[in-house]
Amino acid sequence: MKITILLYDDMTALDAIGPYEVLSRMPGAEVLFAGLEKGLVTTDTGFLKLSADYAIDQVTATDILLIPGGKGTRQIMTRQPVIDWVRDIHPTTQFTTSVCTGSLVLGAAGLLKGLPATTYWAVLDMLENFGAQPVRKRYVEQGKIITAAGVSAGIDMALWLAGKIAGKELAQAIQLGIEYDPQPPYDTGSPAKASSSIIHLARELVD
Amino acid sequence: MKITILLYDDMTALDAIGPYEVLSRMPGAEVLFAGLEKGLVTTDTGFLKLSADYAIDQVTATDILLIPGGKGTRQIMTRQPVIDWVRDIHPTTQFTTSVCTGSLVLGAAGLLKGLPATTYWAVLDMLENFGAQPVRKRYVEQGKIITAAGVSAGIDMALWLAGKIAGKELAQAIQLGIEYDPQPPYDTGSPAKASSSIIHLARELVD
Repeated sequence: MKITILLYDDMTALDAIGPYEVLSRMPGAEVLFAGLEKGLVTTDTGFLKLSADYAIDQVTATDILLIPGGKGTRQIMTRQPVIDWVRDIHPTTQFTTSVCTGSLVLGAAGLLKGLPATTYWAVLDMLENFGAQPVRKRYVEQGKIITAAGVSAGIDMALWLAGKIAGKELAQAIQLGIEYDPQPPYDTGSPAKASSSIIHLARELVD
Repeated sequence: MKITILLYDDMTALDAIGPYEVLSRMPGAEVLFAGLEKGLVTTDTGFLKLSADYAIDQVTATDILLIPGGKGTRQIMTRQPVIDWVRDIHPTTQFTTSVCTGSLVLGAAGLLKGLPATTYWAVLDMLENFGAQPVRKRYVEQGKIITAAGVSAGIDMALWLAGKIAGKELAQAIQLGIEYDPQPPYDTGSPAKASSSIIHLARELVD
């Protein structure tokens, strides 16, 4: 099973790496990290570089496509070669997926018209710009398109997807394999659970 | 605040990237990814390369040290320059931390003697080889040494650490920033919650 993950400058690393750690552990998985060009991309905090071993024009078909988000989404969604690539590769996939603002790239490629979808909590309304119906959920399955909420939501989405592809037992074993028994010391991971001052502070941190 | 994360071949990417996404969002954070040598390291599933922008001998002091784990731990914990570096840099830190089998590197450097510590569930007993007291917890704080359980546990540990360093409000804002409101579709992230067949399958996936 060929899994292609788009990499680009100013993306959020965890958007890609969370699902990668889950999906790459399925037997037979092959993961391709593809950038607009081959080479290193620098993620959004500026300290981490990931290697795009492929240029997107080298990847013309894939079983799973995953588009991560991050502050670089605003740029990458205006790059016509990327939008064309997403539109062209989508018909070859079994699943076209996104994490966080990655869904805006799917939207820009015209894939979300009339469909329910989700994205990062702070930009949920932006989905309407692409004719999508914003839904506040951890992940939204709509046919073969699966959009996840912000950053860490990609882990939950990927576990669910692994179960769908490789069976519940295998997905459960992967969950144990990455010891994903979350015990955050706080409970402010959703705007519905955070005070207005925490929401304000979180928005400041993103900007 | 200078945060140094060790990178090495066959490490598990999420061990490093989970805490990185949390700690790098603290105001004033500077993150250095350091390898035995400068250059790319290939993570354990073989598909992802991360860039070590520094060689460890270029980093002689740090505020936070983070040692990730993965199947490459067995190799890296036998490399004397790495063990010497961990031992030498530890006195300069405010916090010396590990995720997953990364604690075995701390153990090999002699830092865990007589101390409670944790690691990946499947190798918990190995901590005894280094005179540590194995504890089955999400993370264990012992003075300035903080060891986390497997892979995804680093996210929880880092949120807790961010709260300790930058205050509870900021850590809560970071949690919202990465939309960390975990909703895994299964509940098998700990051996205490998984059936024996799932535990068997998880061990097979690791090997």
